[in-house]
Amino acid sequence: MARVTCPVLGRRIATAEEAAAHIRPGDSVGISGFTGAGFPKAVPQALARRIGEAHARGEEFRIGLWSGASTGPSVDGALAEVHGLDKRLPYSSDPALRRLINSGEVDYVDAHLSHSAQQAWFGFYGPLDVAVVEVAAILPNGLLVPGTSVGNNKTWLDRAEKVILEVNRWLPRDLEGFHDVYYGAAVPPHRIPIQLTHPLQRIGDPYLRVDPAKVVAVVETDAPDRNSPLDAPDDSSRAMAELLVDFLRHEVRAGRMPPGLLPLQSGVGSTPNAVMEGLLHAEFEGLTSFTEVIQDGLLDLLDAGKLASLSATSFGLSPAGQQRFLDNVGSYKGRILLRSQEISNHPELVRRLGVIAINGMIEADVYGNVNSSHVMGSAIMNGIGGSGDFARNAYLNFFVSDSLAKGGLISSIVPMVSHVDHTEHDVHVLITEQGLADLRGLSPSDRADRVIAHCAHPDYRDRLRDYVDRARAARPEARHTPHLLEEALGWHAAYLRDGRM
Amino acid sequence: MARVTCPVLGRRIATAEEAAAHIRPGDSVGISGFTGAGFPKAVPQALARRIGEAHARGEEFRIGLWSGASTGPSVDGALAEVHGLDKRLPYSSDPALRRLINSGEVDYVDAHLSHSAQQAWFGFYGPLDVAVVEVAAILPNGLLVPGTSVGNNKTWLDRAEKVILEVNRWLPRDLEGFHDVYYGAAVPPHRIPIQLTHPLQRIGDPYLRVDPAKVVAVVETDAPDRNSPLDAPDDSSRAMAELLVDFLRHEVRAGRMPPGLLPLQSGVGSTPNAVMEGLLHAEFEGLTSFTEVIQDGLLDLLDAGKLASLSATSFGLSPAGQQRFLDNVGSYKGRILLRSQEISNHPELVRRLGVIAINGMIEADVYGNVNSSHVMGSAIMNGIGGSGDFARNAYLNFFVSDSLAKGGLISSIVPMVSHVDHTEHDVHVLITEQGLADLRGLSPSDRADRVIAHCAHPDYRDRLRDYVDRARAARPEARHTPHLLEEALGWHAAYLRDGRM
Repeated sequence: MARVTCPVLGRRIATAEEAAAHIRPGDSVGISGFTGAGFPKAVPQALARRIGEAHARGEEFRIGLWSGASTGPSVDGALAEVHGLDKRLPYSSDPALRRLINSGEVDYVDAHLSHSAQQAWFGFYGPLDVAVVEVAAILPNGLLVPGTSVGNNKTWLDRAEKVILEVNRWLPRDLEGFHDVYYGAAVPPHRIPIQLTHPLQRIGDPYLRVDPAKVVAVVETDAPDRNSPLDAPDDSSRAMAELLVDFLRHEVRAGRMPPGLLPLQSGVGSTPNAVMEGLLHAEFEGLTSFTEVIQDGLLDLLDAGKLASLSATSFGLSPAGQQRFLDNVGSYKGRILLRSQEISNHPELVRRLGVIAINGMIEADVYGNVNSSHVMGSAIMNGIGGSGDFARNAYLNFFVSDSLAKGGLISSIVPMVSHVDHTEHDVHVLITEQGLADLRGLSPSDRADRVIAHCAHPDYRDRLRDYVDRARAARPEARHTPHLLEEALGWHAAYLRDGRM
Repeated sequence: MARVTCPVLGRRIATAEEAAAHIRPGDSVGISGFTGAGFPKAVPQALARRIGEAHARGEEFRIGLWSGASTGPSVDGALAEVHGLDKRLPYSSDPALRRLINSGEVDYVDAHLSHSAQQAWFGFYGPLDVAVVEVAAILPNGLLVPGTSVGNNKTWLDRAEKVILEVNRWLPRDLEGFHDVYYGAAVPPHRIPIQLTHPLQRIGDPYLRVDPAKVVAVVETDAPDRNSPLDAPDDSSRAMAELLVDFLRHEVRAGRMPPGLLPLQSGVGSTPNAVMEGLLHAEFEGLTSFTEVIQDGLLDLLDAGKLASLSATSFGLSPAGQQRFLDNVGSYKGRILLRSQEISNHPELVRRLGVIAINGMIEADVYGNVNSSHVMGSAIMNGIGGSGDFARNAYLNFFVSDSLAKGGLISSIVPMVSHVDHTEHDVHVLITEQGLADLRGLSPSDRADRVIAHCAHPDYRDRLRDYVDRARAARPEARHTPHLLEEALGWHAAYLRDGRM
């Protein structure tokens, strides 16, 4: 069955090379893609070849690349390899690109994922020259059936001067009906309330719109998303998941949570996924999810009938999970909605729905500040992603990490984090395989006692306690958040110097 | 004219001492009050006397005190003096209490002001035993005419087991009609959209409600709010105000802002107030404000016909400003609405309306992280207040400070802030008397160049540049946010050691 049935846009079918020729040096290019799902499969590679050839001729050719979130090696990796990027936003997880960002070659604007679309509209990033967006089909009337992620696609299609569409035959044609694209967004002072009160409520259209006059090329592809195998939960992930599920049970018993909980958000990774596995074997029924990414664990909960409704902006499945989804697409329709990331992560909706937010972290300090993005203060890992959107506005948030990294050379609980993404005001519960620290309603000093006792690894516990004790003693007139500024980042400095904290 | 005309509640009239006798050791007490307006004038002092007497008898007597925000010396100061507090939230600015918090005697929970009411509902702080709320009148049907601030009054009245009302004859009876108390708030999963699309739109009631069965005492008072004289803007404040107003002009010309701007929020202090003075002499017409506190500058803009509508949770006027308001109460009615702080600061509304947020800071680092709350990392100054509610969700935010403090011994621009309240992701524009750094859409490294060039004082500029240069050189593989962890907090440590940065 033809995927491009619009007579107007059908006339723009082109090769990836012809399409990539529309992108000029210095352009800002907005692409589809979120967590390895829904990124364009052909044009970025053709562009990378073109850039490589230009560089071989001694010509300058770099672009700014805007996405939903992370893509795949054929996008960020290929463009990094040819040194084709000078700016990247709002999120990336590609190792090759990470090296270039950390070398200072690529300017990286790490933004809250709910902010990126509106900041583009507000003019923070300048004009958008080209959008390259993957879709599942183009309908006779020119409407677009979105793919496996929505991300910032609506915004890029609306804002770009020129549009390149990739129509990917690999995507199930049955994706039609899985999307809810909100077209009520506006720039202040024209904004109105977003009338969503349930994760599965439709507030938009199943299709993306594009002005056909802007479409310079339609490229047909047949290529899979990047699906990374999920690590099976290890003992540590399972321990953290168990602590978290037990805590939810405790909150229900205390009357602070309904028996079916509140909409779940879980970050990407094996621990959040293990939490979903934990919920699979728990007593909770009629669960809902208002999240960014659909990992395998959420599919399991849907299959088991535990999860009634699931709102996200993207899939992030393992190869096995993806196959399961593809084999049963029809059965998931009506239980999953994919939305723009400005909606999936919207502070208004996260706070209204009362989301339970579960996110990984790199490190936390004894006072409850969390670092999600930087290694030893200076090098970016991936970025803040949606963790701030969810944590700040959540009913209840959890940050999870092993208490140790690098085989014990690094403690994830430190005197002071080397970079702050989530401040002490925004962190409710910390979990490591050692235990859980409920920090709600505590002063910094009380938080320190609890974090050290419950979350720090025994190998580091005494030194943390000693740090706090000496900080309290050193400045009796400054004990709200006791610190020894000459030592506060000493553990990180020691790691850089000696290879261990 | 009688202020208590409800026959049921009229029978509960009592002295402050009789009322204070309802408060037991260990109680959590929720009081009215925000920025020195609307706090109870009699019961806290009677309570302080009672606590002092109990201590003199060798008895334990301390309470937890929850407010809207800051109060006055007769509340925080008096209770601090008798060592009557063991917990305080979510904001305070009293110097005597600050000393006790920083000595470690009082646990202080510094929270986003939009979060405090919902965190009480969610059970973060435990049960609320007593509410002590000042009102302007009690109507025959038992409804309460609120006073000069709304703050968390609705929540305390709803949540407390016992209620003490103070009816203050000093408050103009004409305050009736100035309030909009939203009763649509709920706990998830029962929340619905807040249907507000304009600062002056009414979405609630002009009155507070209370269950008469809970009211244990009604105390009549006749005492003024605490109104602090405002410093006249100095050259530095005027310079910053001018930079900010010029920048808004520039944004309007660039088409990024409507000619009447967007709703203004301004923090408390002489620089934000000077900005309002700057707007008084600028060409903008039809301004609106969606803010926390009404300072004199906003009254000036109203009087001049420049400001069309003003939403806040509290007054924060100088004695002269207060007199002007009292003398002309009627003329302001219909142009000012006071709301609960969970509404005045609500992320949903701040983002929807596209607020322009103007807040002071203690220090910023070259990468754009802002410290609003801590002095040299450990000692609390006041708290984060509403700055996070507004900055994170603003259309455009500004953080302002002199580039120097303590006569030049301290630089407000540092290599790394000693405490983070607003992360690099949340800060748009920094202003000092030296200049303005527009950080929107920049990578950390680009931000550093701009902050140093435009905001740092010349006396510190070379050392900052040197720090960043050496950090870039030290770890060529970690240049996203270049830091030297052994030196990053060295300026603060030097100040503590040597009395100068």
